[in-house]
Amino acid sequence: MIFAGVLAGGIGSRMGNYTIPKQFLLINDRPIIAHVIDKFIVHNYIDYVITGVNPDWYRYMLDIKEKYYKGVDKLVIVPGGSDRNSTINSIVEQTKKMSGSPDDILVTHDAVRPFITLKMISENIDAAIKYGVCDTVIPATDTIVYSENKEYITDIPLRSNTYQGQTPQSFKVKLFEEVYSSMTDDELKIVTDACKMFMLKGHKVHLVEGNVSNIKITYPYDYKIAQIMMENLQDDMFTV
Amino acid sequence: MIFAGVLAGGIGSRMGNYTIPKQFLLINDRPIIAHVIDKFIVHNYIDYVITGVNPDWYRYMLDIKEKYYKGVDKLVIVPGGSDRNSTINSIVEQTKKMSGSPDDILVTHDAVRPFITLKMISENIDAAIKYGVCDTVIPATDTIVYSENKEYITDIPLRSNTYQGQTPQSFKVKLFEEVYSSMTDDELKIVTDACKMFMLKGHKVHLVEGNVSNIKITYPYDYKIAQIMMENLQDDMFTV
Repeated sequence: MIFAGVLAGGIGSRMGNYTIPKQFLLINDRPIIAHVIDKFIVHNYIDYVITGVNPDWYRYMLDIKEKYYKGVDKLVIVPGGSDRNSTINSIVEQTKKMSGSPDDILVTHDAVRPFITLKMISENIDAAIKYGVCDTVIPATDTIVYSENKEYITDIPLRSNTYQGQTPQSFKVKLFEEVYSSMTDDELKIVTDACKMFMLKGHKVHLVEGNVSNIKITYPYDYKIAQIMMENLQDDMFTV
Repeated sequence: MIFAGVLAGGIGSRMGNYTIPKQFLLINDRPIIAHVIDKFIVHNYIDYVITGVNPDWYRYMLDIKEKYYKGVDKLVIVPGGSDRNSTINSIVEQTKKMSGSPDDILVTHDAVRPFITLKMISENIDAAIKYGVCDTVIPATDTIVYSENKEYITDIPLRSNTYQGQTPQSFKVKLFEEVYSSMTDDELKIVTDACKMFMLKGHKVHLVEGNVSNIKITYPYDYKIAQIMMENLQDDMFTV
């Protein structure tokens, strides 16, 4: 089976004055997370959409399901873990209850990236089947700079090799289980990115082409931009 | 003296169907480059704004000066070089004609980042005086990923040490001359970023805090966003 995993474990500490996590803020009268879920619901290859939610907001998410997805069997809600990878693990546990086949694929996606396209989903599924694990990226537009001390630059990597990671990140469920169970507690504390975890354990994480419009809503500024983008969805610039 | 150097050497190959370089596209009936120049003209500490333009567009830029800055002595136009650093060098040569003091400071800025703030300019001047060279950056919001082969990930650096470089990049003119003249032709071909050049030659490039709204207009998508942002400039979200 092919599962979508919507990652909504966050509580949105960078969104300023809003009192609910950013994935629940409305755009066009619909929560951001619902815009994400919609894309996976309509995609023919996705069997189930499993949404991993912060336990404090689990009931709130059930209300969203009741309000926007009444009778939609494709949507499943599970409580997430204390960090990103443990939320993915909660979703993985749910896929095992529902299928447990060694061929199962999981397409994980941020609950706050509502501009994902059906094409990205298709290409993620293809790459996960072919290579085992893949990450959606765009070439970095800005020069990337490192500072190990937050005071001055310690390195500037070659720009042509540098990408900005987006999501989806997709993989064979079986592979995730192998890799996740081999991580020590100390490793899990440091490695918050699933693809980094795969990479550390020796897997080749293949690249899938993302899109500049596949933005992550992190700050109030992004929320504003996202609202404007959603209003202009008919515009070619935003639907490529 | 304190100089601003507006870098307009580019011809905008990523802007799709537009027939003029992106810095000359209009926002609110005013070229993007003029929005940039305005900020430096009004800043009290800046003595002169030297704009380095691609030689093919030098006359076009003179027309902009005539149309929007008639009688503004603070604005100087010079033909730029074949790449970013040689355009900076053309501007540096101009500063030497106008001052040549060992204390001269140059604040360089992309002609396509119209949302620079007066605060960023002030902080750049302070840091360049204090440390010799500085770069304006924001903490990377996306996870940064490397691929040396464009197929799969070869490294994912620690996110907390990773920044997106913006501009201004500011420095003592004297220091730039030392560093630039010590670069070999091969080095100059590879190193397109001024701060990387300083870093390679052993200088500590200090960090100055940028802003997410200080975007670079690279793609048609950015141009659209920039137009909307400019219309909303009264809004707190865009003027922080």
